[in-house]
Amino acid sequence: MTKPEISPLNSWVQVPKDSDFTIYNLPFGVFQNKRLSPRTGVAIGDKIVDLAVLHDEGFFSDLTQLPNDIFLRDSLNEFISLGKPVTRRVREIVQELLKEDNEMLRDHQIRGKAMVNRKEAEMLMPVKVGDYTDFYSSMEHATNVGTMFRDPDNALLPNWKHIPVGYHGRASSIIPSGVPIHRPKGQYKDPNMEKPEFGPSRRLDFELELAFITGRQTKMGDSISTDEAEDFIFGFVLFNDWSARDIQAWEYVPLGPFLGKNFASSISPWIVTLEALEHFRLQGPSQDPEVLPYLKCEKAHAFDINLEVYIQPGSKSSTKVCSSNFKYMYWNIAQQLAHHTVNGCNINVGDMYASGTISGPTEDSYGSMLELAWKGTKPIKLEDGSERKFIEDGDTVVMRGFCKKDGIRVGFGEVSTKVLPSK
Amino acid sequence: MTKPEISPLNSWVQVPKDSDFTIYNLPFGVFQNKRLSPRTGVAIGDKIVDLAVLHDEGFFSDLTQLPNDIFLRDSLNEFISLGKPVTRRVREIVQELLKEDNEMLRDHQIRGKAMVNRKEAEMLMPVKVGDYTDFYSSMEHATNVGTMFRDPDNALLPNWKHIPVGYHGRASSIIPSGVPIHRPKGQYKDPNMEKPEFGPSRRLDFELELAFITGRQTKMGDSISTDEAEDFIFGFVLFNDWSARDIQAWEYVPLGPFLGKNFASSISPWIVTLEALEHFRLQGPSQDPEVLPYLKCEKAHAFDINLEVYIQPGSKSSTKVCSSNFKYMYWNIAQQLAHHTVNGCNINVGDMYASGTISGPTEDSYGSMLELAWKGTKPIKLEDGSERKFIEDGDTVVMRGFCKKDGIRVGFGEVSTKVLPSK
Repeated sequence: MTKPEISPLNSWVQVPKDSDFTIYNLPFGVFQNKRLSPRTGVAIGDKIVDLAVLHDEGFFSDLTQLPNDIFLRDSLNEFISLGKPVTRRVREIVQELLKEDNEMLRDHQIRGKAMVNRKEAEMLMPVKVGDYTDFYSSMEHATNVGTMFRDPDNALLPNWKHIPVGYHGRASSIIPSGVPIHRPKGQYKDPNMEKPEFGPSRRLDFELELAFITGRQTKMGDSISTDEAEDFIFGFVLFNDWSARDIQAWEYVPLGPFLGKNFASSISPWIVTLEALEHFRLQGPSQDPEVLPYLKCEKAHAFDINLEVYIQPGSKSSTKVCSSNFKYMYWNIAQQLAHHTVNGCNINVGDMYASGTISGPTEDSYGSMLELAWKGTKPIKLEDGSERKFIEDGDTVVMRGFCKKDGIRVGFGEVSTKVLPSK
Repeated sequence: MTKPEISPLNSWVQVPKDSDFTIYNLPFGVFQNKRLSPRTGVAIGDKIVDLAVLHDEGFFSDLTQLPNDIFLRDSLNEFISLGKPVTRRVREIVQELLKEDNEMLRDHQIRGKAMVNRKEAEMLMPVKVGDYTDFYSSMEHATNVGTMFRDPDNALLPNWKHIPVGYHGRASSIIPSGVPIHRPKGQYKDPNMEKPEFGPSRRLDFELELAFITGRQTKMGDSISTDEAEDFIFGFVLFNDWSARDIQAWEYVPLGPFLGKNFASSISPWIVTLEALEHFRLQGPSQDPEVLPYLKCEKAHAFDINLEVYIQPGSKSSTKVCSSNFKYMYWNIAQQLAHHTVNGCNINVGDMYASGTISGPTEDSYGSMLELAWKGTKPIKLEDGSERKFIEDGDTVVMRGFCKKDGIRVGFGEVSTKVLPSK
C-alpha cells in the first residue's frame, strides 16, 4: 500500500471546514432518495457522487471487470468482491474527477444528476453482513471491567494478553445510523434479588467501537497471516455495540453475551477505506509478553482515529461524554483476522469485525457508560442539568470519528441512534 | 397442528425396511447430480422426488403462490418463506402422489424423470444460514461439564434453570454431511504448561445436537411467544457441533466459545418437517423452579427422537459410542425461540438454532467424547481394538436420528464427517 500524496488536494465541490468527507476520504455507501432506487455513492462534503450515473456515462470504462449494474445493487458486497485493484481504482478515478482543475465531471452536463444532496438521501446498510464478530481488544476496557466485576489486582484474565479474545454476535440486528431502537426486555437478577425478574432493561449502555469489513473470502481450512490480513480488509465503520448490562450480567456464564447484545448494533453508513486511512497509520502499543509467532506483525497496523460520544436527551442540546482514540487498542486488525482464521474458520465478503469497546487511559476516554459512570457510582452530568448512569428512553447516542494530521481530515461522519421505550 | 393419520400408509416406491425416509416422513433437501443443477427434492426410500419436475408437469398447479422456478434454487429459503400453508400443502400433495393406489405419478410417463436415485445425488446445504445460535439445553450435559470443570456439588450455574442459555456461533462454516474437515490449529494452555502453545488441537470432539430452522422472519423489536413459536419453525436437522476442547478451554472466559467451535459444524442434509414429527411429540421433563411467564408453555414441545453416534476409524468397521434421545432436553424449542426474541432480536428465514449437546442420564447416552471418555480418564474401546479419548485423524463420525412408534418410522438419515489432518 502506498502513502497518499500529501500535496494539498482541492475539489471543485465545496467541502465545509471540518467536514469528514474531504477529497482525501471518499468513503463508499449505499443510498436512496425519493427519486432514486438503492445505489452506490461516494461522499464528498455535503454531496454524494452517484457512481451509477458515472458508470453509465462511461467514466469507469477502462475497468472492464465492472458489470453494468454493479452500482445499482442494494449492498456493496458484489462491488467489494471484485478486489482491491478494482475498488482502489474506482476510488482513484473519483478522486481525479473531483480535483478542482479537472473539468471532466465539473463541466459535464450530467454533473447535476451525478451529484446528489446528502441531506436528501437516506443511507442504507452498506453491506449484507454474513457473520459478525466482536473482539475485546482494548486493555483499558478489559481492565476496567475486570476491576469492577472481579479483582482489581488481577483485572485481566490469564488469556487476555495471549489471544485477541472475541465472540460471535448477531448479524441480523445490525442497523444503520438513524434507525431508532426499542429498549430491550429480558431477565435479570441483581445480587439483592432472590429470584430473577423480567422487564425492560434498567442498564442500557452503548459501546464505542470501530468495525472492519472483509472484502475477500477464504475457504474452510485456510488461514490468513498478519502480513496478508489487510489485503482482506476493505474498510471501517463506527460501531455502537448496544448492551443491556443487567441482562448480560445474568446470562453470560459460561457461554458469553447473548440477549444482552443481540437486540441491536448500530453502524455509521459510510465505509472509510483502508486507503483513506493510510496517512494516519501508526504503531500500536508494545505487547508484553511476546505473542506467539502467528500473531507477530512486520508492519504497523494501528490507526490514529479520534472518537467521540455524545448524549442528546430528547431534543435538548447534546453533551460530549467521551473522547477516545482507536490507537489505544492493544490488539490490531491484522492480529484479529489472523487469529480468527488460524483454525481454518472461513470468512466471506461483507463480514463485520468489531473492535470491542475502545477505552483510553483517562476517565473521560472510557467507551461505555458502565465505565464512564463507574457502575453507576459516578453519574455523568449532562448540559441540561440531568444526570446519567446509563441511557434513558428518549436519549439519542451519537458517535463520531475522524483523523486529522498535516491539514488533512478524514472522518466517518456519525452513527446516531434514538432509544425508544420498550414495546 | 393436526395429528397425522395412523392408518398405515404404503407407497408404490419400494421403501427398504428400517429406511428413515418413509411415506410418513418426506423431508426436504437440495440436491444435484451429474445431469441436474441444484434443485429441491423430497426423499422417499432410496429415491428423491424431483419437485422441479412435478411442478413443471403441473402437479402443484392449485398453489398459485409457487413461482415457476421455486424448486430450481440452490437453497430452500425462498420456498420455506412462502409459509406453512404452502409448504405443508406441497408435502401433502407429494404424500398423496406417492400412495400405492395413486396412479397419477406412478403410471405417468415422467415418473422416470421425477424419481432420482439418492445414491447418485450430491446433497447440498438445504438453506442459506443467516445467523446460527447454539443453545445449551441438556441438563445432563451441563451437569457433566460443570462436574468435570467446576464443582460436582454445584455443577449447574445459577442461571441455568431460569434461562435457556445460548450463544451465537459461526454461520459460514456450517457444512453438509460428507464434507471432510481438517483438524483445527490453535492456542491452548494446559494446566501443566507455563505458557500457551500453538498447534493442531489434541482434543477434537463431536457434540451430538439437533437444530431447528426458522421459516418466518420477525421485525426488530418484536417477540415470539411460546405459543406462536412452532409457527416459525420449519423443521429439524442433525447437527454435529465440532469442538476443539483444548482451544475452547483456554479462550472461553469471559466471552464464550470462539475458535474452539467456529472451524466447522456439520448437518444432515434433509430437513425433517415439524409435521412429520407430530406423531412423536411428548411432554418434556418437568421444570423446577417454575419458569418466568414468558417461558411457560401451553402444550408439549418435546419430541421422542432416538439419536446415535458412531466412530469409524479409517475404512474399518464402525462402533456405536452413544445412544441418546432428544426427549431428555430440559428446555424445549418453543422456550428457546421465545427467549431468543423476548428482547426484540429479529430472526430470518433459514436461521439455524442448535440444541446444545444432547446427553441422556446414562453413561452410554452422553453426547460428546468429553463426557463419554470422561475428560480422557475412561477411554472408549472401539471394535477394531483401538481406544479413543477424543477423535483422531482419519476417523469418520456418523450421527443418526430416528423416531419409531406404532410401526411408523421417521428419520433424519445421517450426518457423516471425516476428520483429515491439520493443513
